[in-house]
Amino acid sequence: MAQPAPPSQSEMRRQNLARVLHALADHGPQSRAEAAARIGLTRAAVSTLVEELMRAGLLVEQGPGRSGTVGRPGTVLQLADRGPCGLAAEIGVDHLAACAMDLRGTIRARGRCDINGRSGGPGPVLGRLTTLLEEVAREAADQGLRPERLTVAVPGLVTRGGTTVVRAPNLGWRDTDLAARLPAALGVLAVDNEANLGALAELWTDRPELPGSTLDQAPDVRGAATSGGPGGPGGPGGSGPTAAADPAGTGPAVPHAPGGDSFVHVSAEIGIGAAVVIDGQLLRGAHGFAGELGHVPVRPDGRPCTCGGRGCLETYAGEEAVLRAAGLEPGPGVRIDDLASRCAAGDQRTLRAVRRAGTALGIALSGAVNLLDPGRVVIGGALARLGPWLLPPLDRELARRTAVASGGRPTPVEVRASRLGPDGPLLGAARTSVRALLDMPVRPAAA
Amino acid sequence: MAQPAPPSQSEMRRQNLARVLHALADHGPQSRAEAAARIGLTRAAVSTLVEELMRAGLLVEQGPGRSGTVGRPGTVLQLADRGPCGLAAEIGVDHLAACAMDLRGTIRARGRCDINGRSGGPGPVLGRLTTLLEEVAREAADQGLRPERLTVAVPGLVTRGGTTVVRAPNLGWRDTDLAARLPAALGVLAVDNEANLGALAELWTDRPELPGSTLDQAPDVRGAATSGGPGGPGGPGGSGPTAAADPAGTGPAVPHAPGGDSFVHVSAEIGIGAAVVIDGQLLRGAHGFAGELGHVPVRPDGRPCTCGGRGCLETYAGEEAVLRAAGLEPGPGVRIDDLASRCAAGDQRTLRAVRRAGTALGIALSGAVNLLDPGRVVIGGALARLGPWLLPPLDRELARRTAVASGGRPTPVEVRASRLGPDGPLLGAARTSVRALLDMPVRPAAA
Repeated sequence: MAQPAPPSQSEMRRQNLARVLHALADHGPQSRAEAAARIGLTRAAVSTLVEELMRAGLLVEQGPGRSGTVGRPGTVLQLADRGPCGLAAEIGVDHLAACAMDLRGTIRARGRCDINGRSGGPGPVLGRLTTLLEEVAREAADQGLRPERLTVAVPGLVTRGGTTVVRAPNLGWRDTDLAARLPAALGVLAVDNEANLGALAELWTDRPELPGSTLDQAPDVRGAATSGGPGGPGGPGGSGPTAAADPAGTGPAVPHAPGGDSFVHVSAEIGIGAAVVIDGQLLRGAHGFAGELGHVPVRPDGRPCTCGGRGCLETYAGEEAVLRAAGLEPGPGVRIDDLASRCAAGDQRTLRAVRRAGTALGIALSGAVNLLDPGRVVIGGALARLGPWLLPPLDRELARRTAVASGGRPTPVEVRASRLGPDGPLLGAARTSVRALLDMPVRPAAA
Repeated sequence: MAQPAPPSQSEMRRQNLARVLHALADHGPQSRAEAAARIGLTRAAVSTLVEELMRAGLLVEQGPGRSGTVGRPGTVLQLADRGPCGLAAEIGVDHLAACAMDLRGTIRARGRCDINGRSGGPGPVLGRLTTLLEEVAREAADQGLRPERLTVAVPGLVTRGGTTVVRAPNLGWRDTDLAARLPAALGVLAVDNEANLGALAELWTDRPELPGSTLDQAPDVRGAATSGGPGGPGGPGGSGPTAAADPAGTGPAVPHAPGGDSFVHVSAEIGIGAAVVIDGQLLRGAHGFAGELGHVPVRPDGRPCTCGGRGCLETYAGEEAVLRAAGLEPGPGVRIDDLASRCAAGDQRTLRAVRRAGTALGIALSGAVNLLDPGRVVIGGALARLGPWLLPPLDRELARRTAVASGGRPTPVEVRASRLGPDGPLLGAARTSVRALLDMPVRPAAA
């Protein structure tokens, strides 16, 4: 029960600056008085912090009466839509994606391209990704934005808090340090598993007060010319639950709401990953490798898997396995969409293949539900598009195999497809970049 | 990021009183000055708190120089070995056990009896348990102890924070509220799953500075006549990691050490349960039902299970399944010990049965390790006695099925038998009772 040492003056200052920024990110534009009440500091203290944040170009003032809260005059503060921004990238086995997000949580630029990530090793893939990120960064710069953080989502295992991809079986990568292969000019780098980032996006999106929840929202502040000038519509005002998760294990510890969200997020693409969120906190595991649902055994004596095991979930419900079972040869251009249209057309072989994948997913998830007792299961990634055919057999397995863990209730655990679809990991990466900027506002940028 | 409301005066006082008690429980006898430094309060504030705790009979003073720390004179404080104490009980399918633990963590009385818990429902079992607990409480009272808390370990699901056994399949209990069936005179009741309590005992025992780690320690303060008189040897002094877990989701939140202990604790008896500890915190799940390893499917089309599923781990590695596979008819008096002696004697049928159980455990744990990435796996309960024959096939399955989650390392996760053996749940229950007393010292007892 020894008390931790009190934080230093400069650390206290950083924490208080971050509090002001997070209050604006979580609750939208508000006055100094509102921010002071929200974070428990005096109005005078907040005014000093705000001055510093405005000098650093992180905050702007709007005219009075713009907060959206009727009857509350006074100058309203808002996060800047120019200056520092976050970059995000997603490395898939068959595609790359990148985007830039401003402090308000708005996507301001994005790009995507197809690749064949299986051949050639990390060199060509990361070269192509650098080009894509530089295009996105240029488009952001044209709008007055300056990338300072980059978060990369990868389909593999990443050491906790590190930048090295320990193993990405479907890319064939091993011990690949992205920090050594991506230009430092793109911002301070964070690397995380795509399933983790997808789960964080899901977690943050469940909080309706957070701006920037979906990638397809209109880039409504694009073209706003000067900081301090008329901004776009801000996030909704009002109060709600506070943001709960610590994106990548960095930054100040944010206390989570009691009884916060608990779910297993399945990210089904070519590989199958999962992320476990407990009380609003991402479970990372002792080495950062938690969530390897794809290698949970579902048929212990079944097919050999690339991991060295047998009968892993991935060999039955991974994208390739389903394509092959449906009689399709996996390759560039052959995708989950083909399976979905064949299912819709009633193709029996495809329906059987997808049903079998749903059963296998249900068996593996039964184990996870019995072990973790999550509040719900969310199916994200490409396989989510097969929901109408995949979810019924999955539900059936869960219902028969998790009766004890559910106290014998007939509906053991809610299963639903993610509303974010395949955008989840990229969105989670972008918000991780932006949250890192909000957490660490101490290096003052030119106003 | 809204600040929580500040605690009330009386809540602050309770927290500070609890801090003093926990400092003594975690770090052994110490002076007021040492306690003040440890918990970050002034010497004067601690003296006031100590006065109150001494009046309540929770603390006693020793003569100077008894702290074990050389060269540190001054009056040394110690937890009382008379007055309030905790009771604990374990309900097994074939046995009951109970004990009383004083504030120092020393077992002062204990009892045990065999039962047949499968027949007759909760009435006879809880009647027998009441008798046993009253015997233990009487023996404690003879030593000047007064039971104020009772924690009961059950082989079933318990609603989070409640006293109702939602379902205990091997006892045939359903929605059984123990609060309605145990005398209130035995103390404020807490009920928890035996696997959870076993895991907490394991967690607390890994911290060598905690007193009362094993049940077979000599009751060295038995018979000390007066509070303030010469006590027995206290816990070791010095500093170490602070206690980390919140025993039953009650009491003040204790911050856990960063990078704290993470493990899966398997509690194998007639049923198979597990508990998951993440960074020193017990994972309870959305409903309190986490840890149902026994119903993780290992052969999806295998034997029907009592839970309604098929091929659950329990149907291959539960005590009954192993006894039957070894050609023994389960029943009173036929136990794991018989299996162990047959294995030692080289009986082929028994060896095969135990090997198969180990393989099944390994398959189920592979899923858990892939999903959770724990630092280690601990096998507790009766099956731990079969370690020499059970662990090799278990290790083999884990090694071949968790290569990805371990980053391809040859030794994926450490597996070991619990040092506490079958005593774990009772010990965890007793420490939970005592921690609850230390957390809530506000109702002053007669000195």
